[in-house]
Amino acid sequence: MIVTNPVTTRTEQDTMGEIDVPSDRYWGAQTQRSRQNFRIGGERMPDALIKAFGVQKLAAARANAALDNLDPELAKAIEAAASEVAEGKLLDHFPLVVWQTGSGTQTNMNTNEVIANRACEILGKPMGKREPVHPNDHVNRGQSSNDSFPAAMHIAAVVEIEEKLKPALKHLRTTLDAKVEAFGDIVKIGRTHMQDAVPLTLGQEFSGYAAQIALGLDRIDDALKRLRKLAQGGTALGTGLNAPDGFDVEFAKQVSKITGLEFKTAENKFEALAAHDACVEMSGVMNVLATSLMKIGNDIRLLGSGPRCGLGELVLPANEPGSSIMPGKVNPTQAEALTMVCAQVMGNHVAVTVGGSNGHLDLNVFKPVIIYNLLQSIRLIADASVSFADNCIAGLEADQEKIAHYVEQSLMLVTALAPHIGYDNAAAVAKKAHKERSSLKEACIALGFLDGDRFDELVQARDMI
Amino acid sequence: MIVTNPVTTRTEQDTMGEIDVPSDRYWGAQTQRSRQNFRIGGERMPDALIKAFGVQKLAAARANAALDNLDPELAKAIEAAASEVAEGKLLDHFPLVVWQTGSGTQTNMNTNEVIANRACEILGKPMGKREPVHPNDHVNRGQSSNDSFPAAMHIAAVVEIEEKLKPALKHLRTTLDAKVEAFGDIVKIGRTHMQDAVPLTLGQEFSGYAAQIALGLDRIDDALKRLRKLAQGGTALGTGLNAPDGFDVEFAKQVSKITGLEFKTAENKFEALAAHDACVEMSGVMNVLATSLMKIGNDIRLLGSGPRCGLGELVLPANEPGSSIMPGKVNPTQAEALTMVCAQVMGNHVAVTVGGSNGHLDLNVFKPVIIYNLLQSIRLIADASVSFADNCIAGLEADQEKIAHYVEQSLMLVTALAPHIGYDNAAAVAKKAHKERSSLKEACIALGFLDGDRFDELVQARDMI
Amino acid sequence: MIVTNPVTTRTEQDTMGEIDVPSDRYWGAQTQRSRQNFRIGGERMPDALIKAFGVQKLAAARANAALDNLDPELAKAIEAAASEVAEGKLLDHFPLVVWQTGSGTQTNMNTNEVIANRACEILGKPMGKREPVHPNDHVNRGQSSNDSFPAAMHIAAVVEIEEKLKPALKHLRTTLDAKVEAFGDIVKIGRTHMQDAVPLTLGQEFSGYAAQIALGLDRIDDALKRLRKLAQGGTALGTGLNAPDGFDVEFAKQVSKITGLEFKTAENKFEALAAHDACVEMSGVMNVLATSLMKIGNDIRLLGSGPRCGLGELVLPANEPGSSIMPGKVNPTQAEALTMVCAQVMGNHVAVTVGGSNGHLDLNVFKPVIIYNLLQSIRLIADASVSFADNCIAGLEADQEKIAHYVEQSLMLVTALAPHIGYDNAAAVAKKAHKERSSLKEACIALGFLDGDRFDELVQARDMI
Amino acid sequence: MIVTNPVTTRTEQDTMGEIDVPSDRYWGAQTQRSRQNFRIGGERMPDALIKAFGVQKLAAARANAALDNLDPELAKAIEAAASEVAEGKLLDHFPLVVWQTGSGTQTNMNTNEVIANRACEILGKPMGKREPVHPNDHVNRGQSSNDSFPAAMHIAAVVEIEEKLKPALKHLRTTLDAKVEAFGDIVKIGRTHMQDAVPLTLGQEFSGYAAQIALGLDRIDDALKRLRKLAQGGTALGTGLNAPDGFDVEFAKQVSKITGLEFKTAENKFEALAAHDACVEMSGVMNVLATSLMKIGNDIRLLGSGPRCGLGELVLPANEPGSSIMPGKVNPTQAEALTMVCAQVMGNHVAVTVGGSNGHLDLNVFKPVIIYNLLQSIRLIADASVSFADNCIAGLEADQEKIAHYVEQSLMLVTALAPHIGYDNAAAVAKKAHKERSSLKEACIALGFLDGDRFDELVQARDMI
Repeated sequence: MIVTNPVTTRTEQDTMGEIDVPSDRYWGAQTQRSRQNFRIGGERMPDALIKAFGVQKLAAARANAALDNLDPELAKAIEAAASEVAEGKLLDHFPLVVWQTGSGTQTNMNTNEVIANRACEILGKPMGKREPVHPNDHVNRGQSSNDSFPAAMHIAAVVEIEEKLKPALKHLRTTLDAKVEAFGDIVKIGRTHMQDAVPLTLGQEFSGYAAQIALGLDRIDDALKRLRKLAQGGTALGTGLNAPDGFDVEFAKQVSKITGLEFKTAENKFEALAAHDACVEMSGVMNVLATSLMKIGNDIRLLGSGPRCGLGELVLPANEPGSSIMPGKVNPTQAEALTMVCAQVMGNHVAVTVGGSNGHLDLNVFKPVIIYNLLQSIRLIADASVSFADNCIAGLEADQEKIAHYVEQSLMLVTALAPHIGYDNAAAVAKKAHKERSSLKEACIALGFLDGDRFDELVQARDMI
Repeated sequence: MIVTNPVTTRTEQDTMGEIDVPSDRYWGAQTQRSRQNFRIGGERMPDALIKAFGVQKLAAARANAALDNLDPELAKAIEAAASEVAEGKLLDHFPLVVWQTGSGTQTNMNTNEVIANRACEILGKPMGKREPVHPNDHVNRGQSSNDSFPAAMHIAAVVEIEEKLKPALKHLRTTLDAKVEAFGDIVKIGRTHMQDAVPLTLGQEFSGYAAQIALGLDRIDDALKRLRKLAQGGTALGTGLNAPDGFDVEFAKQVSKITGLEFKTAENKFEALAAHDACVEMSGVMNVLATSLMKIGNDIRLLGSGPRCGLGELVLPANEPGSSIMPGKVNPTQAEALTMVCAQVMGNHVAVTVGGSNGHLDLNVFKPVIIYNLLQSIRLIADASVSFADNCIAGLEADQEKIAHYVEQSLMLVTALAPHIGYDNAAAVAKKAHKERSSLKEACIALGFLDGDRFDELVQARDMI
Repeated sequence: MIVTNPVTTRTEQDTMGEIDVPSDRYWGAQTQRSRQNFRIGGERMPDALIKAFGVQKLAAARANAALDNLDPELAKAIEAAASEVAEGKLLDHFPLVVWQTGSGTQTNMNTNEVIANRACEILGKPMGKREPVHPNDHVNRGQSSNDSFPAAMHIAAVVEIEEKLKPALKHLRTTLDAKVEAFGDIVKIGRTHMQDAVPLTLGQEFSGYAAQIALGLDRIDDALKRLRKLAQGGTALGTGLNAPDGFDVEFAKQVSKITGLEFKTAENKFEALAAHDACVEMSGVMNVLATSLMKIGNDIRLLGSGPRCGLGELVLPANEPGSSIMPGKVNPTQAEALTMVCAQVMGNHVAVTVGGSNGHLDLNVFKPVIIYNLLQSIRLIADASVSFADNCIAGLEADQEKIAHYVEQSLMLVTALAPHIGYDNAAAVAKKAHKERSSLKEACIALGFLDGDRFDELVQARDMI
Repeated sequence: MIVTNPVTTRTEQDTMGEIDVPSDRYWGAQTQRSRQNFRIGGERMPDALIKAFGVQKLAAARANAALDNLDPELAKAIEAAASEVAEGKLLDHFPLVVWQTGSGTQTNMNTNEVIANRACEILGKPMGKREPVHPNDHVNRGQSSNDSFPAAMHIAAVVEIEEKLKPALKHLRTTLDAKVEAFGDIVKIGRTHMQDAVPLTLGQEFSGYAAQIALGLDRIDDALKRLRKLAQGGTALGTGLNAPDGFDVEFAKQVSKITGLEFKTAENKFEALAAHDACVEMSGVMNVLATSLMKIGNDIRLLGSGPRCGLGELVLPANEPGSSIMPGKVNPTQAEALTMVCAQVMGNHVAVTVGGSNGHLDLNVFKPVIIYNLLQSIRLIADASVSFADNCIAGLEADQEKIAHYVEQSLMLVTALAPHIGYDNAAAVAKKAHKERSSLKEACIALGFLDGDRFDELVQARDMI
């Protein structure tokens, strides 16, 4: 929590009157009112969103300037202040929690107030006077919370995905690919229904994981197409009232320039304010990734179980003591952290869905809870993927002795016999070996289906992969 | 789907006019309109709900009769027809799907129409004339869809829980308890984080499962307290308009008498119409049961994995050939069916929650989807519990040879040394044994902490449980 | 439920021995065992999946024939029988429920058995002898349940989406587009936070809905890219053991030919068996559509509320009597059915996610619950969209008198003054009018900001859209 | 994030070796390793859990002392240090995130290390030497992470519920009850299906809300029965290995004494470690509360819609300027914050369910994500309930003029005629009035059913409630 000296304050005002704010903070009256009216939880608006709001105000100022809709000197001061927000230099001046107005108006006003006061300061004027830079008339010029907040939502999500999530997933995929190659020659028993099955290589098994991540990246790129569309220019309802002509297109161009990422103006601004389907969709992609990573994490946990009473095919890196009572124990903690993240992302997705579906009439008012959950999901998957890649996957080793032992004693190599002696006879061989705890070869010979040489010729685990 | 001869019809009417209905069906105009207007999916209103509606109309007729609010002769005919509905004899006359009006009005009218026509028939009168028994004026007397449907929802759920779910869970618990006893002396290795841990008995492991089910039964009983409260008597809004004085109490009394189960009238009828929190709560209890059963099913699947390359501590009954290509393979299919049911129940719970939370003003209009999911969850858990108990748990056997082998070679018995030689020294013993693939005893002696006799004295798996 | 004469049976066999089956059914021993071992719920495998399995066996027989892997005469008989399954002619011979083995093996065997017996019959041979057409050796040739079931899942989902869902959504979009045009000139009050806001046209409002559906169609097409990939050819684990070379590519080609839709073989078969991310993804797209439709349904319900005490801007078509107690009332029943469907789809999505995330090692064994929910979601959205389009949207009329009345009395037109008299002064005008229940014009003149002519010039609802 | 001077460190050690930690922090080696290995997200373990861990260690020290299992002097120092943790004085020394080992071992060790170092300090000894107070041998004596973490989970949740949530909900209920009384005489139009219905009083409507909260409190108390059971004494697996006899009962007694709240030892410790059904259950109760509050919040938003183009029956308190572009607008921001909280709680419930269902064998390793979400849900509902009560409900006023106007013009009073002139005739009156935009009275007279006096006698809104 921000601790401010309650003694030193200055007076700020809005349409409801005057109110005291801490003198060492740039925020104004509406921010202060929100702090007092919404004492709920402790979850502050995500940093990524605040920075995106800096980008949004910077792009808006430039677009206004380009369209002759804002005094150049004021525009310049606003741009300077907005840049500081975009760079994360003023995060301490954004105290508001997620649980505020559902349009995010108070955070838009927080941004307007901080930038207005900081711009006044840059211009050598005192804070709190709303001149020469006024939070509504100048910083918010041509904008409404109703289009600014969705624009900032999309900017924040796209930036986080491009800059953190995609590199993290690519890193995980590369780390997995290295194991696909390293484990490419290790023939092991397959397991379906958690039961012994026909063989495959450990590398093939890991290739499935790598494919899941690669497909996840494809899914992200598809959903990004719709997340790159910005609501800005719709103003209060989607009509664009009070925004200059061409503001929407110019704004998107400026955001692209600032971020170096592709953005476009939304074709239909009514949809872009009243619904957040693009966020629900991207949250759905996070949900698929959580599904993939839950599967991968569980597999590593299973294959690394042991050391002596589990499957034990993989040896996990020992990063920390595993237990406070059982000395010598090392646990699959990275898989545990990863799968907990997956549970969280699945839950977040429901929160986003509920929020997305409850928009009414011309404005969805679950915006903060939607972006809070989406950004948390993005960050958690990104961070956990890197941690899992570096602290678990990279250090995995195969216990080749154990793996070979399983292959030798497995009954399921009998499948190789089915095309030669028929399905029913092959089943009889397996049943006999199972019952008598003997080898398949012994059973096959005893049943008179094949001699030993022919058996050895037909049943080669390496030929079955 | 019901196939009716389109040639033979009779004319029915409602406030919107006339309409043809199949002549061999008791339903009337409003049912027919719903069939035509809602061609959505194929999920018909659950049988349990239709039967509960029979109980609801029977109890209403008796309450009306008791309060002199209905002609005794008509009441008698209505009671006879309603009894047939309650006994499930007329299910073919309830063709409507879940995806209809959100108040369930059309199914209430379906019930009123079927009972009215059947009562007319009993009284020797033709169908479709709405006399002497009128669906609204007599069968629905003193009622509204808005209180009748919620009453039927609660009746259906309580009956299904008392008659199917609780006996099923008790059966599963008893089956598990038998294994607790049978496996009580089998000392086995414990596994935490999927890794080898200190020992316990297989019976103790199963006692945890049995406790989960026993606690689930407690949860059901607690939630039933609120599900036993009936909305009937509130009529259209909760005010009780057009219902005779005392109708609510008398109705609940009659339902208790008919079903032999405890029911009471709801204290606040406004809550009972506008919200379905009691259903959301009971769905939440189903969700806990799904959580419990998912855990149990996964454990059985893990402990029964093998036959030669898995944990293999349990031998599962072979109920069917497991694979179309791998002969001799037997899979944990009952655990798979059970855990799929759990996934469904978790999903159903979200559907119930979304429906329950979207009620607006004086009537929740997600009633059909709420009860459809709740009843499906109840039935699936009941059926799957019995199937799992009978076709899996009852036939489980312990592979004592394998279990003993794991205990002997485990490193985690070292925990027993910690109180005697200290945590750090105990860890050193385990590490040495692990590294050298030796036994704990050898490592402990080599490190000079204890001699062999003292080691054997201290490290007894049986003493650790 | 299927009712069969228990007296007339024939004997079938599998690797576990003999078992009696109803003599008038094509299924065999494994199907019969499943019926007896899985008495859970009543949800049978969806028809769409059974038909897709017909396509799968047909394509497999053709691929086998093309690759010289199956006797041409047997192939021909299998093709004929499989075609009947694909056309839905043999649905009564598929009695199994969703809650069976998690690999769907029993439904794969059900298909193999039905086709084998029917093919034998076509070839003039008796059923139950497994010759000349054997369910495993011939019908299932080169296949495993583990690749056949996922292939059938994808085929079923793609066919349902292409043939039902996409046409349904296009129909809804077209119906909405017609209203966009019809309502294009109707200026109405906007509402944000459910509060009066600046104006827009009713057509603009509907354009947001149409855009949501159009974007939903784009989402479907993106996700279809991954759903068109087929697991077939991977056989039991993904290695392709026992399948002829080139079987996977040939199979996908045959499926494309049979269905007239694009399909390709999956790049990584290990992923395609062990995970169902493509289904989780498509379920996520259904979840977005549910979100969109929930929003649209709620809006129609709100705008059509009344007739005298609601917003009343829209007049809904009266399709049925709305209440059993309140005569003359007509309810937004189509919106209710639609939004209940949305709740169901959101719940289904969680079931699919839980199932998708719980795959372990080389095979996901939640296949039936995943496809059951995905197909239900697809069908419900398709059917509900058509019903909503035809029975609600198409018949909507605007109450232009009411709409105009709201625009006239709204205070929010004051926004048009902000750029001219400043934000704070504009707020003062609105506050004064609100307090004194006067018009904005009166308040503006009284406060001396503008004269009446200038006010009229600036404040034109039509200019604000 | 905690910023510490990287230059000043001290050396700590654990079984894996030495590691540097910041010299101004009490934590030790295992905490430091976790910080480095789990750089995931920024969500730290909730303060409420850390404080509960203080209670847990305090109670354990006292129980050990009472059972002669710990040197009294060391016990005293541990108690003093644990008390500081319990009081929240050392929160800055708990830097670990939720996304760590799934057993919460690292946070248990963090607690052990902080208390050990602080206790050494109290005893005048240097930190980092693990003597005379050793984190494992003394602070964790008779305990394991596996029973300590679940115990702390339950303690934290019960304390938060008893001290924050229940008082908050009681406050909300009291605030609602005051409105039930204040609005008791205001007859208003009811709305079902969002359509005009028969009348009720505004007080009756609010009584439904109050009943929902009252029932929610009952649900909490029922679920608390199972949350009051503590796992402590089970140690690593549930067997109680290394814990002194009677430790479990004595521990629970001590926790009750420290907190002043009822706690008992769990009957089955295996269940208590391997499953967290009691947390899933309580999360389900939070989900019901979210459902209730979503409904209430939506109703307030609907009834307060306007000021001139909505339902407008309620006047909401104006707490802040509602829009950055539309002056004079005041929005239902408290309802928005509340309903966003509800969306979050519904999502959290799914995260808890997924975590709860994925426990395997003898230990559930989703403990941190379960308790993180449960505690967040508890706190958000508590805080939002108070904020909503104080900043919205308490200040609500009824617009009696508007309410009366609706009642007068409503058509639904016709329901009062049904018992007198029959359902069909009553429907005809309503239809005629609706079509001709006339009053019911006029229509009824014109149709010749009643004269004006009789109409007035029968149709009295006040008599219909």
